[in-house]
Amino acid sequence: MLKICIVGSSGHFGYVLKGLDERCKIIGISPGTPEEDMSKLEKTLLEMNITPKRYEDWRRMLDEEKPDILVINTIFSLNGKILLEALERGIHSFVEKPIATTFEDLERIKDTYRKVKGRVFFAAMFGIRYRSHFLTAKRLVDEGAIGEIRLVNTQKSYKLGKRPDFYKKRETFGGTIPWVGIHAIDWIHWIVGKRFLSVYATHSRRHNLDHGELETTALCHFTLEEEIFASLTIDYLRPQGAPTHDDDRMRIVGTDGIVEVIHERVFLTDDKGHREVPLVEEGQIFRDFLKEIRGQGKCMVTPEDSILTTEVALKARLSADTGRIVQI
Amino acid sequence: MLKICIVGSSGHFGYVLKGLDERCKIIGISPGTPEEDMSKLEKTLLEMNITPKRYEDWRRMLDEEKPDILVINTIFSLNGKILLEALERGIHSFVEKPIATTFEDLERIKDTYRKVKGRVFFAAMFGIRYRSHFLTAKRLVDEGAIGEIRLVNTQKSYKLGKRPDFYKKRETFGGTIPWVGIHAIDWIHWIVGKRFLSVYATHSRRHNLDHGELETTALCHFTLEEEIFASLTIDYLRPQGAPTHDDDRMRIVGTDGIVEVIHERVFLTDDKGHREVPLVEEGQIFRDFLKEIRGQGKCMVTPEDSILTTEVALKARLSADTGRIVQI
Repeated sequence: MLKICIVGSSGHFGYVLKGLDERCKIIGISPGTPEEDMSKLEKTLLEMNITPKRYEDWRRMLDEEKPDILVINTIFSLNGKILLEALERGIHSFVEKPIATTFEDLERIKDTYRKVKGRVFFAAMFGIRYRSHFLTAKRLVDEGAIGEIRLVNTQKSYKLGKRPDFYKKRETFGGTIPWVGIHAIDWIHWIVGKRFLSVYATHSRRHNLDHGELETTALCHFTLEEEIFASLTIDYLRPQGAPTHDDDRMRIVGTDGIVEVIHERVFLTDDKGHREVPLVEEGQIFRDFLKEIRGQGKCMVTPEDSILTTEVALKARLSADTGRIVQI
Repeated sequence: MLKICIVGSSGHFGYVLKGLDERCKIIGISPGTPEEDMSKLEKTLLEMNITPKRYEDWRRMLDEEKPDILVINTIFSLNGKILLEALERGIHSFVEKPIATTFEDLERIKDTYRKVKGRVFFAAMFGIRYRSHFLTAKRLVDEGAIGEIRLVNTQKSYKLGKRPDFYKKRETFGGTIPWVGIHAIDWIHWIVGKRFLSVYATHSRRHNLDHGELETTALCHFTLEEEIFASLTIDYLRPQGAPTHDDDRMRIVGTDGIVEVIHERVFLTDDKGHREVPLVEEGQIFRDFLKEIRGQGKCMVTPEDSILTTEVALKARLSADTGRIVQI
């Protein structure tokens, strides 16, 4: 039986609840800070008849419960600090992305991970990879449907609504590029599989509807090896009346065809024409994570992926903050 | 009766033939260089029973025919040089975009235009503006359907096929950003109506199927005043099997909604939901040009637009050539 503790209620703990099986158990929960609103997690657990012990201090929880797995999804700036401690304690971690909101935290995580690699596993919550449309696009590319990738266009568009206060400060939120944009950085990394060389980015806080320092729009321009280019457009301006919360898109242009993910559907254009592609079955990131922890296979999201995408996201944010092209 | 001469057969003379009326007449044609293949223009004129005099030297044609209007669509690097001479001679010009392929030619055109402004008119062939879907998007934005524009994403994707030899040299072709990308620069300029401040761009010649120096892919990142950002993705990798030659797109994200041009259709997302918008009637650029020449109204594409978009395109190319952010 794998013992699971959860820190925080501010991220995608839903992946864990959906991926639970009879051989693992949530035994403890704690906020990341005394102020964190835990009601969302608590309400969901109650509905599922899961009754872990509630702690006020996550370190005490780790001391007392000695979990096998720590789920980290608190105030974004704390996720990396808690991951660091979990790795030091040898606890496998399923952690919200970005895995750090500062280069300093990321460097510490890299250093520590180097020491525990092979013994301790962690993965960032890149659950969007597992959605049918993205898995389908990945499979098409891997099967050679579009030849060599030359250009990628990605989009993240979210409704803003009313966010918790910690979104309003760079110090606690981390920025829209690391929080929202990182998903598309992950798709690019995962599907293209080439080294990122540089990034140029811009972002703007205007019209963020009283969300303080939160950036409402951002644009990133990545150059990968072999002169592959990738664009990423990000906005929190999706109208409240839109049919879905997000409008995730990816267009992958290759030498032999173009694959496109749009409106949760997948289209392929090649010499045979333009057509919709049937979707493969959806995956589940936490089940995939458990598989790796149990030694039954590889999790599609690796610690290396989690580190790299965070680094690229932080460098994109640095570019947008400074107006400079940043080498990766 | 307006007398029209045409130089070259390498661009969009089709706009002229479609926009002709009984009060104007094509009286002379000439290649831009002795080597230029004139067969496309000649064949089309023959089919339309139009029999202008054929010259071998466009300057002699201007001397002898003294046209009211010169249509310029020859080898791309010559268009600006011929426009310059037309302006000096006081001849209204309908000229292929970009109106120059070098900053030097563009500066000369600006200087000369300053002197003849008000007496001599010219417009670049931004005929895509007049297509129903783009006119519809423009009208929606102008009517305030999306509030203030914050972010724009544009796309130009073309089939490459087999291009004439002059496409294979930067010196004669000018580059894919100025030739293909400039259309989207024009949409951004026309619809957003704000000043361009800077551009970062990249481009690649790889996999251009023996097209020498022609760039197969490019990505541009524009910053406009008020922290408005605009992306432009360009490729010549649209598969031959695709249903259309081009896949032009534009997504305009505003504070109150999002307008999107895709697959020649227009969609609006706002607080009322997501829906397709009926298209307004198509326009015709050469008829619009004639209207201005005849003093019957304003042409939607102005000389100032033509100069500005060319300058932005050349600066985007400069950015891609040098790897630097270029101020506009």
